[in-house]
Amino acid sequence: MSIHIINPNSSRTVTDGIDAAIDPMRTASSVPILCSHLHGTPPGIETQAHVDGVVAPLLARAAELEDEASAFVIACFSDPGLAALREQSAKPVLGIAESAVLTAMTLGQRFGILSILPTSVPRHMRFLGAMGVMDRLAGDLPLNLGVADLGDEGRTFARQKEVGARLRDSHGADVLILGCAGMTAYRKRLSEALGLPVVEPCQAAAAMAIGRVALAKTDV
Amino acid sequence: MSIHIINPNSSRTVTDGIDAAIDPMRTASSVPILCSHLHGTPPGIETQAHVDGVVAPLLARAAELEDEASAFVIACFSDPGLAALREQSAKPVLGIAESAVLTAMTLGQRFGILSILPTSVPRHMRFLGAMGVMDRLAGDLPLNLGVADLGDEGRTFARQKEVGARLRDSHGADVLILGCAGMTAYRKRLSEALGLPVVEPCQAAAAMAIGRVALAKTDV
Amino acid sequence: MSIHIINPNSSRTVTDGIDAAIDPMRTASSVPILCSHLHGTPPGIETQAHVDGVVAPLLARAAELEDEASAFVIACFSDPGLAALREQSAKPVLGIAESAVLTAMTLGQRFGILSILPTSVPRHMRFLGAMGVMDRLAGDLPLNLGVADLGDEGRTFARQKEVGARLRDSHGADVLILGCAGMTAYRKRLSEALGLPVVEPCQAAAAMAIGRVALAKTDV
Amino acid sequence: MSIHIINPNSSRTVTDGIDAAIDPMRTASSVPILCSHLHGTPPGIETQAHVDGVVAPLLARAAELEDEASAFVIACFSDPGLAALREQSAKPVLGIAESAVLTAMTLGQRFGILSILPTSVPRHMRFLGAMGVMDRLAGDLPLNLGVADLGDEGRTFARQKEVGARLRDSHGADVLILGCAGMTAYRKRLSEALGLPVVEPCQAAAAMAIGRVALAKTDV
Amino acid sequence: MSIHIINPNSSRTVTDGIDAAIDPMRTASSVPILCSHLHGTPPGIETQAHVDGVVAPLLARAAELEDEASAFVIACFSDPGLAALREQSAKPVLGIAESAVLTAMTLGQRFGILSILPTSVPRHMRFLGAMGVMDRLAGDLPLNLGVADLGDEGRTFARQKEVGARLRDSHGADVLILGCAGMTAYRKRLSEALGLPVVEPCQAAAAMAIGRVALAKTDV
Amino acid sequence: MSIHIINPNSSRTVTDGIDAAIDPMRTASSVPILCSHLHGTPPGIETQAHVDGVVAPLLARAAELEDEASAFVIACFSDPGLAALREQSAKPVLGIAESAVLTAMTLGQRFGILSILPTSVPRHMRFLGAMGVMDRLAGDLPLNLGVADLGDEGRTFARQKEVGARLRDSHGADVLILGCAGMTAYRKRLSEALGLPVVEPCQAAAAMAIGRVALAKTDV
Repeated sequence: MSIHIINPNSSRTVTDGIDAAIDPMRTASSVPILCSHLHGTPPGIETQAHVDGVVAPLLARAAELEDEASAFVIACFSDPGLAALREQSAKPVLGIAESAVLTAMTLGQRFGILSILPTSVPRHMRFLGAMGVMDRLAGDLPLNLGVADLGDEGRTFARQKEVGARLRDSHGADVLILGCAGMTAYRKRLSEALGLPVVEPCQAAAAMAIGRVALAKTDV
Repeated sequence: MSIHIINPNSSRTVTDGIDAAIDPMRTASSVPILCSHLHGTPPGIETQAHVDGVVAPLLARAAELEDEASAFVIACFSDPGLAALREQSAKPVLGIAESAVLTAMTLGQRFGILSILPTSVPRHMRFLGAMGVMDRLAGDLPLNLGVADLGDEGRTFARQKEVGARLRDSHGADVLILGCAGMTAYRKRLSEALGLPVVEPCQAAAAMAIGRVALAKTDV
Repeated sequence: MSIHIINPNSSRTVTDGIDAAIDPMRTASSVPILCSHLHGTPPGIETQAHVDGVVAPLLARAAELEDEASAFVIACFSDPGLAALREQSAKPVLGIAESAVLTAMTLGQRFGILSILPTSVPRHMRFLGAMGVMDRLAGDLPLNLGVADLGDEGRTFARQKEVGARLRDSHGADVLILGCAGMTAYRKRLSEALGLPVVEPCQAAAAMAIGRVALAKTDV
Repeated sequence: MSIHIINPNSSRTVTDGIDAAIDPMRTASSVPILCSHLHGTPPGIETQAHVDGVVAPLLARAAELEDEASAFVIACFSDPGLAALREQSAKPVLGIAESAVLTAMTLGQRFGILSILPTSVPRHMRFLGAMGVMDRLAGDLPLNLGVADLGDEGRTFARQKEVGARLRDSHGADVLILGCAGMTAYRKRLSEALGLPVVEPCQAAAAMAIGRVALAKTDV
Repeated sequence: MSIHIINPNSSRTVTDGIDAAIDPMRTASSVPILCSHLHGTPPGIETQAHVDGVVAPLLARAAELEDEASAFVIACFSDPGLAALREQSAKPVLGIAESAVLTAMTLGQRFGILSILPTSVPRHMRFLGAMGVMDRLAGDLPLNLGVADLGDEGRTFARQKEVGARLRDSHGADVLILGCAGMTAYRKRLSEALGLPVVEPCQAAAAMAIGRVALAKTDV
Repeated sequence: MSIHIINPNSSRTVTDGIDAAIDPMRTASSVPILCSHLHGTPPGIETQAHVDGVVAPLLARAAELEDEASAFVIACFSDPGLAALREQSAKPVLGIAESAVLTAMTLGQRFGILSILPTSVPRHMRFLGAMGVMDRLAGDLPLNLGVADLGDEGRTFARQKEVGARLRDSHGADVLILGCAGMTAYRKRLSEALGLPVVEPCQAAAAMAIGRVALAKTDV
């Protein structure tokens, strides 16, 4: 039995980043944590059509894994298929966006989100509205970088510092969220640079999944 | 050029009901209104997996119709693919749930929704939250009838009257919304029975589409 | 039978602007659309006393037109008398502010409003609060121009571009609303200049009225 | 200099009730409190047209009293002209509905409103939304009694107990508000009967006005 | 290093109940989980003065444990000292009420709370408002049982079933929260009786703490 | 019988400032207004631990004064012990933060708060959320001055003007609140400098207490 973190896009680079990001957590998990990605899906989830389009293959993959899964984590910041997989599976299902927001709500009073693209923002507004937590949002600002651009560390980190500082100083954020699964490499240094807690959503969801595996013991 | 009302499920009965419901509106439309349904999708959209699963075929069908469409209406009360189709198409795109809610907001101060199944309700809460209109919601109560059951007129109307009266009397609704595209036949009689305006979502969306076709003239 | 757009102020210039703005829509309306204004009311509605003061003459005028009206549009961005006329009339009643907001909610996730004066803003906040849509508001900023100043095209458009860009860039608006019936001339060019959809409220309300005339056919 | 409580309807009975209700407060006011009503307005404010229609005469009357007023109280639970009089007058202006709500917010966590008619409720929802306090509302239920019926003490009090108990037990109200200026006679006994604090809005507004007169001393 | 669950009241019975409730989770925790209670505090936290009064001894106790704590859990459903301990401690700090709510937000769309006393409810409303999650609340209803009464299993469980069914059927809750640390014994059977997920707040917080201990590994 | 304004910190300077600020109001109060402070508490309430820690001595002091108090005012902008003292006392209890907010809600549509320290802001967000008035908040910005720094008039006033102007111009505030009991000396001049109403919270609470003393006469 394992925690299955499924990256709905088809990018090995992103999946490897997630795997590295959660690797230190493995010693504190009672079950293995396995990271994988889908095949045939886009290399980055950047449009609403991408979000909706990966649900069916995600559900299919999760169905195959159902028996061996302690918990599922959907590793895309648009949480594609979150509600659908919860209906399908008997196991705990966490989305990285939802988990990041819930975690941020315990680390600060108003969270800021660093999105990749301007078009990501209205999508986030919809799920934050659906979550009913708009009053906790300080702001959501785009880096203007696509998923593929996130590998350019110098440019990405410079933009993160600039946008993060604006969220802190002009929007009143006291905790930040990295709004894409492809920014795992930047959490710690951004937190140090800005003096604020920064939530990396895959780590946040893995943490919640580890807890949920423990919680499931009370159901036996 | 036509308004295309696309029923994402594969039920001809539902599509025929929509067609009949909007038929009186055709004389007031400057363009034809065509109703169709998808093929290979479920006969009723009853789960979140259904909702997510019809998006891809819906987008494909809409892409084929793009050049001949004055406007699109997505005729399922979960508004599957609404955001995605808006990203894809250059034409006005209306969802029947969103249109019903916006219309109800002009007819009363707090709307009640008659859903088909208990599992529909949390799905509606998510889109109402995403729409940011939870303060206008009086309540959302299930009829406990599936899409296929809605053809049983006696049973359906009896439940509608009972649930609608509860929304009016216990929840303070002053306008009601039929929460499924399969209840077109009941709007007028339910309104008369309960003394409240009742919004049939396909009609509401068709009305908004007719208006939007007129509005588009100002862009030329 | 006609759609009656009533401008509650007494400015022929404003009324003529509305008439020109909705003129392209007439070919897509099943009924004539007539624009008129009240007499003896202020030339611009700029204070709350103006708003409240025009309700009685508006109701009187609408009562005279009741039999020949397919629908009413109240063409002032404070929607004076909207609730009262809905109580008085059996016909569809639309307000341009409410219609602009509902329309903007289908074109973007967060709307920005370009108001004429700083004193307009709290009035708008009250009706947006009453509408229950504050979570969809990006911001509402004044142009610092009175109704009479809006005829100065160079100055008005320059301010609109400046304020609109600020709503887009600092407040996160992805759709804009012109917050006065006297800015009809600027919609299209402002949209092109800023790369965002811009809602002109009289056009939005006319579109909804055209749709509502069609919808009323289902009541016969 | 006096606090002027202006009843916008033309009912001497209602005005006398207000006068009696605030009479015990006079010994704790540093200025006289004078109650009056308008002439030529309806005997009860029961529709939105009534609300809007009394604004002009109210503003005119207040303008006459401006020099001799320490503060104004608008004594109708729809707060007609509240924003307009605040724009017109340099003196503190309180509305009884707003004052009742603000007072209730210090006496309990969720307030219930006893309205006179079903048609009052959406009007209240609009001003509570405009006030931004919907999260503090437990419920708003009609007594189904018009202003003229409120003189029938047995029937009125019986309905108040029934509706108040429902607000407390089914809606979770821990403080109640009498939703009309014509229910002054019932506050104390209703509070005793239900074991909850009950706010009479004219008294609440008079209390706030007395405080505001004191506060104005800091401006000299 | 251990997770320290501190019950701020002085009841060994409550602490033992917590210890038993989280015991099955220990095998899935990478660190020991220790449950303790304060001394000299009330046997049950039933008033706001109790809540505020236990903060100082709680902070003192946590300061003593700071070096040996992997994480802290404050085990009282009013989350006394949650913000204060977060300011004081460098370790993860979880409150059981906040954790229960965040957990419930992943298990259903609208949560219902079973409180012990009517006076608990406004206190909960304040923290739910402070959390910004009122739109996710279905209802909060009292059992009318004090902390000491919760040991009477027959009576307590009967009331829980009755109140839980009312939250489900009249208020639309699709997930329930036990609103006191003294109801640990009832979670599983209540969930089975009502057919809804039920969150026991100490378990929910322990799960989050286990996850947070894992998350802290990424900070090293 | 007197109105007791209790400053929960131990600073005579702050208490003297409060006393001077409300002094002009005494001629308009039917009872004396006495200002005092606690002993053994911090000289300024700057952390959540301070807030929670002063509740017990505040409740003890209020209990001693219960018989001679017409009303209590808690004079710290975090309103420590507000809910607890309301449970304990039979007299009206006002907090200066709550009173300032309620007063500001009658003077403008969106209030801005000038806080002393960045750490004050999340604390304010929590109580504004608990009050359910987040939609009325324009912004809350820190002066970056501790309680002890507020005596430096030049520096304090310069910062107030700068921060107040930013709340007005960038955040849309049309009324300002001084977010600490230690800024009593600046209200009038800040209001004149910025052209907006400015609420000093101790004065606002004293005003409400004076009104509440009058209101209590209706209970006899």
